[in-house]
Amino acid sequence: MKILWVFAHPEPQSLNGSLRDEGIHELRALGHEVRESDLYAMNWKPVVDAGDFHRETIGADRLLVGAEQERAYSSAELTDDITAEQDKIAWADALVFQFPLWWFAPPAILKGWFDRVLVQGFAFGLQDAAGRTLRYGDGGLAGKRAMVITSVGARESGFGPRGVHGQLDEVLFPVLHGTFWYTGMQPLPPYVVYGADRLDAAGYGERAAALRERLRTLPDTEPLPYRHEHGGDYDDALVLHPEIAPTRTGIAAHRSPAPGH
Amino acid sequence: MKILWVFAHPEPQSLNGSLRDEGIHELRALGHEVRESDLYAMNWKPVVDAGDFHRETIGADRLLVGAEQERAYSSAELTDDITAEQDKIAWADALVFQFPLWWFAPPAILKGWFDRVLVQGFAFGLQDAAGRTLRYGDGGLAGKRAMVITSVGARESGFGPRGVHGQLDEVLFPVLHGTFWYTGMQPLPPYVVYGADRLDAAGYGERAAALRERLRTLPDTEPLPYRHEHGGDYDDALVLHPEIAPTRTGIAAHRSPAPGH
Repeated sequence: MKILWVFAHPEPQSLNGSLRDEGIHELRALGHEVRESDLYAMNWKPVVDAGDFHRETIGADRLLVGAEQERAYSSAELTDDITAEQDKIAWADALVFQFPLWWFAPPAILKGWFDRVLVQGFAFGLQDAAGRTLRYGDGGLAGKRAMVITSVGARESGFGPRGVHGQLDEVLFPVLHGTFWYTGMQPLPPYVVYGADRLDAAGYGERAAALRERLRTLPDTEPLPYRHEHGGDYDDALVLHPEIAPTRTGIAAHRSPAPGH
Repeated sequence: MKILWVFAHPEPQSLNGSLRDEGIHELRALGHEVRESDLYAMNWKPVVDAGDFHRETIGADRLLVGAEQERAYSSAELTDDITAEQDKIAWADALVFQFPLWWFAPPAILKGWFDRVLVQGFAFGLQDAAGRTLRYGDGGLAGKRAMVITSVGARESGFGPRGVHGQLDEVLFPVLHGTFWYTGMQPLPPYVVYGADRLDAAGYGERAAALRERLRTLPDTEPLPYRHEHGGDYDDALVLHPEIAPTRTGIAAHRSPAPGH
């Protein structure tokens, strides 16, 4: 496979830096092609602003961000740094996003990669022959796989089904469902290093081995079972039909139960 | 009250810009003091890096972000831009965060304000007399109120209890619970403008009036009923006791039911 590894940590000598090095080495040893976007090393600009569209100043004309992103994409007028990332995504069969979990979300430098790169016309906003907008399971990035690798200081129990921090896949819903699945990518279960601040050498070895195993199975790991927007579960107002998971509300309602459950 | 209004939109002539102007005018007319952090206008730096700690380069010594933030805070060595925001927060009784919802989360420029400003020792990581770490309902920002004002292109139904985008307060859980509540702030219900791309003048007037009403009730609106970490609902592993909301898992389990429910 062709794999794009997006890395968002300021310190190459960190736990994340070591896991990144091991992970990319493992993927290459398995015969995959790997390209990398090391956002700190690239000095990635995370802020959407008029400069993305070669506009000198803000406020001269009113800037409509979404519309301007779509226009600039379709007329090939986005800045080169954005276009280079879109080319890497188009090339890739799978994307890996590695970051420390700060405030229960990706660091700003990665959030700004989503904000600036995944523009309408490229990642979403496409339509099928019937004029339906393609989202959630389909879209500009359909067919690609996407995996989060993240580290947290807290213990695993706190991110479990009843842990105080919230169940991890639900905390990451804006990324896994709202970004990956929205654009058509298949979100794989996140790989998480818990207790990252207290990991000793043995603990590191165990987590690195587990990561290598996850990377070996990257091509065929079962994605999270989110529901397709056009799969029949949602009505025209984008609300679940009453007979679908009738007792469930909130984020949990958007995972379809595994067969037999 | 003293209110800090954090604004994260690139275009002052936007819907958000207009609502911001009306909102701040209303608060002042009510007799409140208002200070503003207009992150785009300030050219706010969103990226945590070695420069935050007056270090020249990354990688010379290993940068441990959390520890370095805490050390620099306690020794008053954070950069002036960070310190200025911390001073505004310390001054404020309530904080308003206004932003367009991009990828179901705040724009990078605001995420980077959380990442850089809310450091350990200031916003969290404090302990009580018994040596317990103060989080979730208590912490460095305890006693302050926090309110999100956001805009989305989608219709309201899609963010309802069974809407495809996920119930809005659960989608914002990393902000409302993981950031506001974690640091001790009381999260108020978010104020949302739905269908923001299609709003006509009448629709705008209606939404602006509703916002003014929300701001009039800012001092006494009931916060979201999240559970206190040390309120007796969680065990030492930070997991809900079996008898608390026994049938609930995931994000939804961390709201305590309203009295009588």
